[in-house]
Amino acid sequence: MITCSHRLEVLALPGMPLVAPGDDVPALVARALSGAGVSLADGDVLVVTSKILSRAEGRFVELPRVEPSARATELAREVNKDPRAVELILRESTAISRRAPGVLVVRHRLGFVVANAGIDSSNAVPPDARPGSGPWALLLPEAPDASAAAIRAKLEAESRARVGIVISDSFGRPFRLGTVGTAIGVSGLPPLWDRRGEPDLFGRALETTVTALADQVAAVADLVAGQAAERRPVVLVRGLGFAPSDRGAGALLRPAAEDLYA
Amino acid sequence: MITCSHRLEVLALPGMPLVAPGDDVPALVARALSGAGVSLADGDVLVVTSKILSRAEGRFVELPRVEPSARATELAREVNKDPRAVELILRESTAISRRAPGVLVVRHRLGFVVANAGIDSSNAVPPDARPGSGPWALLLPEAPDASAAAIRAKLEAESRARVGIVISDSFGRPFRLGTVGTAIGVSGLPPLWDRRGEPDLFGRALETTVTALADQVAAVADLVAGQAAERRPVVLVRGLGFAPSDRGAGALLRPAAEDLYA
Repeated sequence: MITCSHRLEVLALPGMPLVAPGDDVPALVARALSGAGVSLADGDVLVVTSKILSRAEGRFVELPRVEPSARATELAREVNKDPRAVELILRESTAISRRAPGVLVVRHRLGFVVANAGIDSSNAVPPDARPGSGPWALLLPEAPDASAAAIRAKLEAESRARVGIVISDSFGRPFRLGTVGTAIGVSGLPPLWDRRGEPDLFGRALETTVTALADQVAAVADLVAGQAAERRPVVLVRGLGFAPSDRGAGALLRPAAEDLYA
Repeated sequence: MITCSHRLEVLALPGMPLVAPGDDVPALVARALSGAGVSLADGDVLVVTSKILSRAEGRFVELPRVEPSARATELAREVNKDPRAVELILRESTAISRRAPGVLVVRHRLGFVVANAGIDSSNAVPPDARPGSGPWALLLPEAPDASAAAIRAKLEAESRARVGIVISDSFGRPFRLGTVGTAIGVSGLPPLWDRRGEPDLFGRALETTVTALADQVAAVADLVAGQAAERRPVVLVRGLGFAPSDRGAGALLRPAAEDLYA
């Protein structure tokens, strides 16, 4: 059950360092919270940008070390992209949704549909990179739901508050321009808020009223994290009311059989 | 230019009445602000749910008064919907994007792709409805950008602050479940935040960094307005920094020629 709030506070936490491979993200988030003087309360949600998990997991790949397959080479020619980048996209994907010059939209192995398998080449240089190395790419984290659960476990043990964690990434969309914050990992917060069957103002059952709660929370965080999200990779959203949930971000995926577009 | 904020406050305004045909929405919003003791500041954004504009504009339609065309009747049989509802959807649309049992996704005359042309049958009963009348449908407002501009003009004249207005609706999405708040009218706030060319942390130009600012602001508001959005149809978002813009919500639409899905 979710009690809709009338007021939210959204705060980008100061004090997060630039994350390096091997770093303990749950501990870094806990430290940033205490450094900012924030005591977590029941119902607080922390939105963590996927990029710091990718960095902590060492998901950097140096493109010159990637050997493109014959399929990647052919596809790269077709869409006019670097064959090594296409090879990485194919390795991270289960299917191609759309291809066009400069564009490869795929179904990621985690289930969502995203351009270029969510692989980033901004801020993608590892801290120990040799001078002159690269170009580098940064893959999405291995298991964002599990990372969300680990951060939640750490923060709940330290604070005794029941919180929600969203791992976010910026996704483009069909039909519309611009990216929006999107949930790729969730723990604690219900990913969907299902109000079907509740009466409307006139006693008639509400119709299309399943809200993508975790995606909207990711969008809020994107507004304060900015694009250079590594500088403010953790955002506190305070004021949502919800009962704890153990559903992951897969709950937000439309089953392929019901998808008229993928 | 947009200065990304570290902190946002999001507040659903109390004191909005149930809006009726002929009501002056800009005046009602101004009154709710002063009733709540809110003095607008530069950079404040007000998100107004499309439904109160539809109600003020009297966009109610009683289904028994709709005469379905031959095309609507045939299409209704194909997708198993009420032919009168299909007739309304076709009148509000310029093209059909997808059809399936129970589903009609169209390009709305305002340009966006949306299920059922955004026509709502929850909370759709006009205040002066005869007992036993209906069922009723409520069409999207006529010109949301113009409505946003009118609300902005009224509030800026009264407050001397430079503000942004977003007219929002809840849209479903391909690929993902659940609805998200989406901007269908914009004034003052830049619909898109274009940061291409800015350097990342390592001095490399950022790549895909056009953010759908107005859509994300609409998503924030949806979190506090809830689905029964008529009860809290106006949400204040304070803390974004932006330079005034005169672009409307059309800036958020992907040109049909570049759309791989529509």
